[in-house]
Amino acid sequence: MNDRILLAHGSGSKLSHDLIEKILTPPINNAILSRMDDSAVFELSGKLAFTTDSYVVNPIFFPGGNIGRLAVCGTVNDLSMSGAKPLYISLALIIEEGLEIDELRKIVESVRETAEEAGVQIVTGDTKVVNRGKADRLFINTAGIGVISAGLDISGSNAREGDKIILSGGIGEHGMAVMSQREGLQFRLPVVSDCAPLNKLVSEMLAVSSNIHSLRDPTRGGLASTLNEFAGQSGVGITIEEDKIPIHDGVRGACELLGLDPLYIANEGKLVAAVAPEDAQKVLSAMRMNKYAGQAAVIGEVTGERKGRVVLKTRIGSSRILDMPTGEILPRIC
Amino acid sequence: MNDRILLAHGSGSKLSHDLIEKILTPPINNAILSRMDDSAVFELSGKLAFTTDSYVVNPIFFPGGNIGRLAVCGTVNDLSMSGAKPLYISLALIIEEGLEIDELRKIVESVRETAEEAGVQIVTGDTKVVNRGKADRLFINTAGIGVISAGLDISGSNAREGDKIILSGGIGEHGMAVMSQREGLQFRLPVVSDCAPLNKLVSEMLAVSSNIHSLRDPTRGGLASTLNEFAGQSGVGITIEEDKIPIHDGVRGACELLGLDPLYIANEGKLVAAVAPEDAQKVLSAMRMNKYAGQAAVIGEVTGERKGRVVLKTRIGSSRILDMPTGEILPRIC
Repeated sequence: MNDRILLAHGSGSKLSHDLIEKILTPPINNAILSRMDDSAVFELSGKLAFTTDSYVVNPIFFPGGNIGRLAVCGTVNDLSMSGAKPLYISLALIIEEGLEIDELRKIVESVRETAEEAGVQIVTGDTKVVNRGKADRLFINTAGIGVISAGLDISGSNAREGDKIILSGGIGEHGMAVMSQREGLQFRLPVVSDCAPLNKLVSEMLAVSSNIHSLRDPTRGGLASTLNEFAGQSGVGITIEEDKIPIHDGVRGACELLGLDPLYIANEGKLVAAVAPEDAQKVLSAMRMNKYAGQAAVIGEVTGERKGRVVLKTRIGSSRILDMPTGEILPRIC
Repeated sequence: MNDRILLAHGSGSKLSHDLIEKILTPPINNAILSRMDDSAVFELSGKLAFTTDSYVVNPIFFPGGNIGRLAVCGTVNDLSMSGAKPLYISLALIIEEGLEIDELRKIVESVRETAEEAGVQIVTGDTKVVNRGKADRLFINTAGIGVISAGLDISGSNAREGDKIILSGGIGEHGMAVMSQREGLQFRLPVVSDCAPLNKLVSEMLAVSSNIHSLRDPTRGGLASTLNEFAGQSGVGITIEEDKIPIHDGVRGACELLGLDPLYIANEGKLVAAVAPEDAQKVLSAMRMNKYAGQAAVIGEVTGERKGRVVLKTRIGSSRILDMPTGEILPRIC
């Protein structure tokens, strides 16, 4: 086998089959995937969650992860934010001609490792190759299916007045890690992506409370976008306090240097929850036991004022509207 | 709104939300999609089929269709080939900065139209934008979920000795249509893509026979690939007769001109079935009533000889092994 991807690896030819059978499938294989039909087939019943995301992160390797880990985490997390237990994931690659096969191996190995950590199976996939200069090394799409326990109804539109807003940890780490890698920036305190599967965290939260109303992972557009989405979808106001929001010193320093606001920077291993006030403390305690949420904090609450808006109480005691981001923020972060 | 896609349309900003809410969602909206959470949520039970494909066809508009119609048909057809009734589709776009928004509208309109024809719903999606020169106008990924009737077990590995091989119509039309558009070729007889959703055809076939063993749509790699896959997966031999294979005169002429073998050219609206001999005639009759399979024909049979191999009986009476394609065939056909 050649050491770089050729156009022929994507054409349905023998070379395509070899790539799939020798490089892509073995690390992630399982009884469903190995059937090698046009569809994966399995039994499943109940209330299901179904989601998709494409990943176009640049560069494809960054401190704390790579596009493979990101693609599994992203879909696992989207399913988890509906309260679903993620089960089955699809993996579709669009490869630029010339990608080193060794890099592809590393990425598939990360996919395997992350899927194993999250307890999900890759059950179906697709591989396309486009000419040099017609993609940027590698794009990945994952879709996923999960099952939602009976009676559970978690949605961005379910936040209610009085709910506490809980954030699972420091913000902006993924965005700043990718940014520093892409721009070749060296910060005094290195920033590492928080990219992580959050399904176990969510199941630990659901185990202690049946009053978690909304869950979302603040990816593109950051914490500010997610809170604005909750406020808009639920028709409520949200007030958060700046000094309650955990931020790693490296992220804070890098953002100051670059004139960026960490509230708008992408996370890939954090979640925001709107939780009934009576359950907030026990949810918080459960979260802090999880390795991905040791810094979880109540950062604000849902109010009946300024519906559809998010208000930020700043460190110096003033208040301002925290808008939906406009413009391009950081492109190609996920 | 600008008339071209900007990087900011993919960044999670207000512009992203506008694109999704004003351009992408309205044509395809439904109760599940409109929830606008991270996952689509629906009730479903039984044996499910799950599949994914990315589409990187170049150009994105071609005679007989465009990348939007193709992306819906491809996933609907992959589900159908497992005997599943396709229900829910995801739609993930990777857009190159600079794409005209009017073109995007046309493609979304084709997605709507094709989904409606197939009776499926687009329930979740994703939009990414990459810098100019980092993708080729538009890539689409669709994943899909369908439900398989109890007792049905259709697989590329179920073909049995004696089965008849049925092909639903003329081969090579999609590949040659894309090729002619891309290369600016004018053939005497214009070739139009056969791109079509085949779920209704499959359900009509299943209604008349419970002895359909294998189904597959011969896309990349063409009829030759699909037959080799059946032979390999099922551990059988397959013999087909060249003069039984329907080929549109335009495809035949174009292939002769370009030195291509239509047996290796992609189809996007055809299927190949391995059917128990006693049911072949009634399956064929049912197929011929469907508008996408008027030219359906028995083209050969499954044998116990030369296991894993496909034998082609040529028009002049000789026999040769029909190999899996090697090399790159036609890139970026789907």
